[in-house]
Amino acid sequence: MHFRLTQTCLDGKARAGELTTPHGTVPTPVFLPVGSQATVKTLTPEELKEIGISMVLANTYHLYLRPGIGIIEKMGGLHKFMAWDRPILTDSGGYQIFSLAALRQISDEGILFRSHIDGSEHFITPELTIQLQETLGADIIMVLDECPAYDDSLEKVQRAMNRTHRWAERCLRARRCSDQALYAIVQGGVFSELRHQSAKYLTSLDSPGYAIGGLSIGEPKEMTLAMIEETVSLLPETKPRYLMGVGSPEDLVEGVARGIDIFDSALPTRVARNGALFTWQGRHNIKNAVYRQMDQPFAPGCDCYTCRTFSAAYLHHLFSCDELLGYRLATIHNLNFIHNLIQKIRATILDDSFSSFKDNFWASYQPTNEQTRLEQKRKWLDSRNLNQ
Amino acid sequence: MHFRLTQTCLDGKARAGELTTPHGTVPTPVFLPVGSQATVKTLTPEELKEIGISMVLANTYHLYLRPGIGIIEKMGGLHKFMAWDRPILTDSGGYQIFSLAALRQISDEGILFRSHIDGSEHFITPELTIQLQETLGADIIMVLDECPAYDDSLEKVQRAMNRTHRWAERCLRARRCSDQALYAIVQGGVFSELRHQSAKYLTSLDSPGYAIGGLSIGEPKEMTLAMIEETVSLLPETKPRYLMGVGSPEDLVEGVARGIDIFDSALPTRVARNGALFTWQGRHNIKNAVYRQMDQPFAPGCDCYTCRTFSAAYLHHLFSCDELLGYRLATIHNLNFIHNLIQKIRATILDDSFSSFKDNFWASYQPTNEQTRLEQKRKWLDSRNLNQ
Repeated sequence: MHFRLTQTCLDGKARAGELTTPHGTVPTPVFLPVGSQATVKTLTPEELKEIGISMVLANTYHLYLRPGIGIIEKMGGLHKFMAWDRPILTDSGGYQIFSLAALRQISDEGILFRSHIDGSEHFITPELTIQLQETLGADIIMVLDECPAYDDSLEKVQRAMNRTHRWAERCLRARRCSDQALYAIVQGGVFSELRHQSAKYLTSLDSPGYAIGGLSIGEPKEMTLAMIEETVSLLPETKPRYLMGVGSPEDLVEGVARGIDIFDSALPTRVARNGALFTWQGRHNIKNAVYRQMDQPFAPGCDCYTCRTFSAAYLHHLFSCDELLGYRLATIHNLNFIHNLIQKIRATILDDSFSSFKDNFWASYQPTNEQTRLEQKRKWLDSRNLNQ
Repeated sequence: MHFRLTQTCLDGKARAGELTTPHGTVPTPVFLPVGSQATVKTLTPEELKEIGISMVLANTYHLYLRPGIGIIEKMGGLHKFMAWDRPILTDSGGYQIFSLAALRQISDEGILFRSHIDGSEHFITPELTIQLQETLGADIIMVLDECPAYDDSLEKVQRAMNRTHRWAERCLRARRCSDQALYAIVQGGVFSELRHQSAKYLTSLDSPGYAIGGLSIGEPKEMTLAMIEETVSLLPETKPRYLMGVGSPEDLVEGVARGIDIFDSALPTRVARNGALFTWQGRHNIKNAVYRQMDQPFAPGCDCYTCRTFSAAYLHHLFSCDELLGYRLATIHNLNFIHNLIQKIRATILDDSFSSFKDNFWASYQPTNEQTRLEQKRKWLDSRNLNQ
C-alpha cells in the first residue's frame, strides 16, 4: 500500500499519514524542498538529513536539458547521482516548459519547446515524460499536464484541462515500472465547474495519488484556498493529495487544514537566498539594519545549525558582503523552520489539537502582505523569463 | 615560547615545528586558508575542522570596512564572531590597501585611502592597525607594511622598505596586548641587497616571527624562489618564517624546502570556485568535457567529502549549472588536498625523507604553465580592480 492514513482531525479535514516508497517511509503532511537540478541549492544531502528532510523534489525538465537523462542513467539513476538515498518526487516538466521554455507549440500529441538554456528545440510527449521519469527512478512521478495562466479564459482553461486528462491516460498506459507511484494532476484553473470535472475524471483513472496543479500562480490567495477546498472534497479519502508549488508557512497551515498531505515549493530556499528568514512572527530580512549589531541568534531559541552557531550580526555581515556562506546558513534556517512547522502540525493532528495550533499560529504569525506577495511573485516570474 | 622546532632536515632547510597560541598548538609547516571577510568562502567552521585546518587568516582591511572593527568587538571578538575557536592570523591590511583601495596618499605618518566598497576616505597608521588587530583578537598579527609593485625601481622599493622598517618599530611600540604574536614583514622586492638590509634590520627588532612579503605578485617564479632562499638564510633559526600570499601545491613544496614554516593564500579556494581542482598530477578543471560522464570520483582514492560522496559527473553538472553547491564541494576538495600535502610534507620531514618526497612529488606533478600562471594572475588582479 502506497499511503496509509493514521489520523484525521475530528473537527476538520487535516490528516496525518504515511507514504510508503522504495526508499523509505515518509510521514505526512510533508514538505518537499525543491532540488530542480539534482541539488537543493547550497546544501549537501547530509545537511538536509540533519534538518530532518524526508523527501525532495527534482525536475525532469531541468535534468532532461542538463546533464541529460542518459547521463544520470549511466551514473546509476537520480538517487545515486545526487547521493540522496531517501525518497524523491520528480515533476513531469510540464510546468517548467510553460513557465521557462520559449516558442512552444502545443498539440494533442505533445509539446514542442525551445530550451531556456541554449534555444535547442525539443518535443515532449506524455509517453516520453514517463520514460524519462522511469529512467531517473524517483519514487513518485507525475503525469504531463498543460498549465494555463491564472487569468486565461474558461474556454482556454477547459481545453487545457481536457488535454491534461487525455495526457494523464496516456501516461498511465505508458508505465513500465511498477515501483514508482504515478500521480495524476487535477487542473481547471480558478473555475469550480472545471475543478469538479477534472477531479471526477481523474479519480476514475484510479491513480495512487492526486496532485492539485495550476494554483498559486498569481491568483488572489482566497481564490487559491477556495479551489483547494473544492478540489479536495472530490478526491478519495484513501489517496494522498499533493498541492504543487505551495510552501509558505501560512499556506502550509491552511493547506493542511483543507486536507492536503504533500507540498513542494522553492519559496523557502529562494527567499532565504534573498535574506528573508522565517520566524513564528513572520518573515524578516536579515539585511535589515536592526540585525547589524545583534549578538543574539537571528531567532533566539531556534534549533537550526545557523541559529545555534552564529549571531544575527554575523549572518547580516555575510549578506552585506554577498558571501556564499550566508545563502547556505539562511537556507538551513528556513528549511529547518518549515520542517519544525510540519512536525508540529503533524503532532497536533495526532493528538487532535491542530485547530488550536492553527489559531495560535495565526495569533502570532504576520503573513507577507498580499499586495507585496503578488508583486514579488510577478517580479520573480518576470526575472525567470528574462534570465533564462 | 611561541615556536618550537621539532625537526630540521639533515640534507636541506625544511623543518617541522609547533606554534603555541592562546587558541591551541599548530603543527608546522602549516597552510592557512584565507577568510578575508571572516569566512573561508562557502565553508562552515565545522567543515574546515573536518578537513583538519588548524588556523585561518582574516583580513583587517576587509573587516575594518565591513562590518567594522567596533561591531566585531561588540560581538565578542573575531573568534566568537566567526565561530572559529582555533588560531587566527590577521593581516594588517597593508597589502589590500595597495591592491584594492583607490586614491591613496602614503606618507611617513600613514596611508590615506578610499574604500573599494563605497569610496569613503580612511587614514590608517601603524598604531591604528595594531589597535584594530588587538581588538579583533587574532593569535598572530602583522605589522603595517608598504607594498611596492614587483616592477618598481630599486629606489622606489628601497624607500618603501625603509618606511616599512620605521612602521614596524612603531607597531612594536604600539602593542598593548601580550598574548598576540606580532610578526615583522621583510620587504625589498626582488633586490638581494634590499632583502639583506630588510632582514638584518628587522631581526634586530626581535619579533616573535618573520614574514616575507612582496613576493608572488607577478615576478617570475625562479625570482620568487631565489628571494625566499636569500631572505630565509638571514632569518633566525628559532623564529617561525611566514611566506605571505603563497599557496599552490608546488610553491608549498618549494617553500618548505627553503625553510618556510607558514603559508597563506586564497589560491586553493579561489581556483576551486572556477572549477580548477588539485590532483597529485596537477590542476584539472572539472568543467572539462572529460568529466561529463565519469561515474568515478574526480580524484579516485581522495579522502575528501566531495570525492567520497559524489561522482566527477555530478560535480561537472553542478559547475555546468552554476550551482552554489559546486563551489563548496570544489573548495572542500582543494583545501583537503592542500592539507594532505602539508601533512605528508611534515611527516616526511619528521622521518627525514622529505627530499625523496619532493622528488616523487615533482615526478608526477605537472605545475600550471608559467605563462598561463602569470596571465591568470594579471587577469585576477585586473578583475579585482574593476569589480571592487
